[in-house]
Amino acid sequence: MTAPAEGTPDDEADRERRAAGPFDAAARAAVYRAIESRRDVRNEFLPDPVSDEILARLLKAAHCAPSVGLSQPWSFILVRSAEKRAEVAGIVARRNEEAANMFDGERAAQYRRLKLEGIEAAPLNICVVADRSRGGPVVLGRTHQDDVDLYSTVCAVQNFWLAARAEGIGVGWVSIFEPDDLKPAFGLPEHVCVVAYLCVGHVERLHVRPELEARRWGERLPLADVVFDERWGAGAEMFNR
Amino acid sequence: MTAPAEGTPDDEADRERRAAGPFDAAARAAVYRAIESRRDVRNEFLPDPVSDEILARLLKAAHCAPSVGLSQPWSFILVRSAEKRAEVAGIVARRNEEAANMFDGERAAQYRRLKLEGIEAAPLNICVVADRSRGGPVVLGRTHQDDVDLYSTVCAVQNFWLAARAEGIGVGWVSIFEPDDLKPAFGLPEHVCVVAYLCVGHVERLHVRPELEARRWGERLPLADVVFDERWGAGAEMFNR
Repeated sequence: MTAPAEGTPDDEADRERRAAGPFDAAARAAVYRAIESRRDVRNEFLPDPVSDEILARLLKAAHCAPSVGLSQPWSFILVRSAEKRAEVAGIVARRNEEAANMFDGERAAQYRRLKLEGIEAAPLNICVVADRSRGGPVVLGRTHQDDVDLYSTVCAVQNFWLAARAEGIGVGWVSIFEPDDLKPAFGLPEHVCVVAYLCVGHVERLHVRPELEARRWGERLPLADVVFDERWGAGAEMFNR
Repeated sequence: MTAPAEGTPDDEADRERRAAGPFDAAARAAVYRAIESRRDVRNEFLPDPVSDEILARLLKAAHCAPSVGLSQPWSFILVRSAEKRAEVAGIVARRNEEAANMFDGERAAQYRRLKLEGIEAAPLNICVVADRSRGGPVVLGRTHQDDVDLYSTVCAVQNFWLAARAEGIGVGWVSIFEPDDLKPAFGLPEHVCVVAYLCVGHVERLHVRPELEARRWGERLPLADVVFDERWGAGAEMFNR
């Protein structure tokens, strides 16, 4: 077979075929390692700053996420100032007290013992928002589900988180606030909504199991319990073959 | 330094320190390759079935996603029957005609020329749902944002998608339907909601750029346009240093 000339349609088709194949075993293992060892970090942040070089790679990874109709609805507000982080920590502390009161007895006491965020310990916070007007008034793929732009933004968060794992950077997602609580602090206009608030920094260690499992707050479900064939509730054959 | 004995607390601390470090250059590159070369597939599916071995690895990757309060709200309904796929394709075709009518003039004509789903071409579809009752009436981290369980489920989708890329499996996310449209087809109870409908299969080629960019439906934004410092709209210094 002769190699096609540069820039010809054959060359493009050839690149597309190469782009489709499976990774080799080592590269596949690296992807699974990132997925399996990623953790939600609250307690293990170091004060060392995250370099611009690493942060640019993580943001680029986030920006590679799939987005409905290529609308790329996400924006990332980098929060490094101690004053701003203290302001957010105060909002979350008030909401956290409300949250603790929603649990009963021993569970409430256990909740209060958990440290659930690293807002002030992490040197970098990122307020991840969705601009709901981006892509114009009608977005391909968003015509019948208005919230898929929020889902695209979540895909960007997960890309960021996995790339961070590969870089040795820890990430914690804080959700103990009403989304509108943070709008004044970041000057968000009406059409922009908070999807995730992330704490980001180097870490000295990472839990081997999810922290809420290690602390006996909950247990991981067997995979076979969450996979069905054809209909809700019909156990999947693939686990019985 | 002496190596700690197996199974001692020192051993655990040592494992946690090792778990936190950055990957080596080749493993980091593999993670970024999955993130950057992942595509939304509509046209390139092959009819070959996805093996149980590969599918189990992809589902396990999805099941490793972060979830609010460790609630693991996701379930995966595997759809292989041609009849069920044809039923869903019919629902989507009707909604797609409504969608085309929402665009004006040339844009509507362009929309109609795009093939937006591979429901019948892909040998496997997965209806990804969230059980909104999972984790009980009060879920840690979901006390002030009811929809974060849907976001957890999206994280599972993104894990699945990236693992699929590493395995040479293509994935397309279809969203051109009202979420309740699919409830009868899959027997979903009231408290279970559709988050994503995925087309899954081997692919012979993969677009090098996002397909909607290649077909000039839209353009990718510069990263610097979506990153701010401290407040909405304040351009990030990191891109000017």
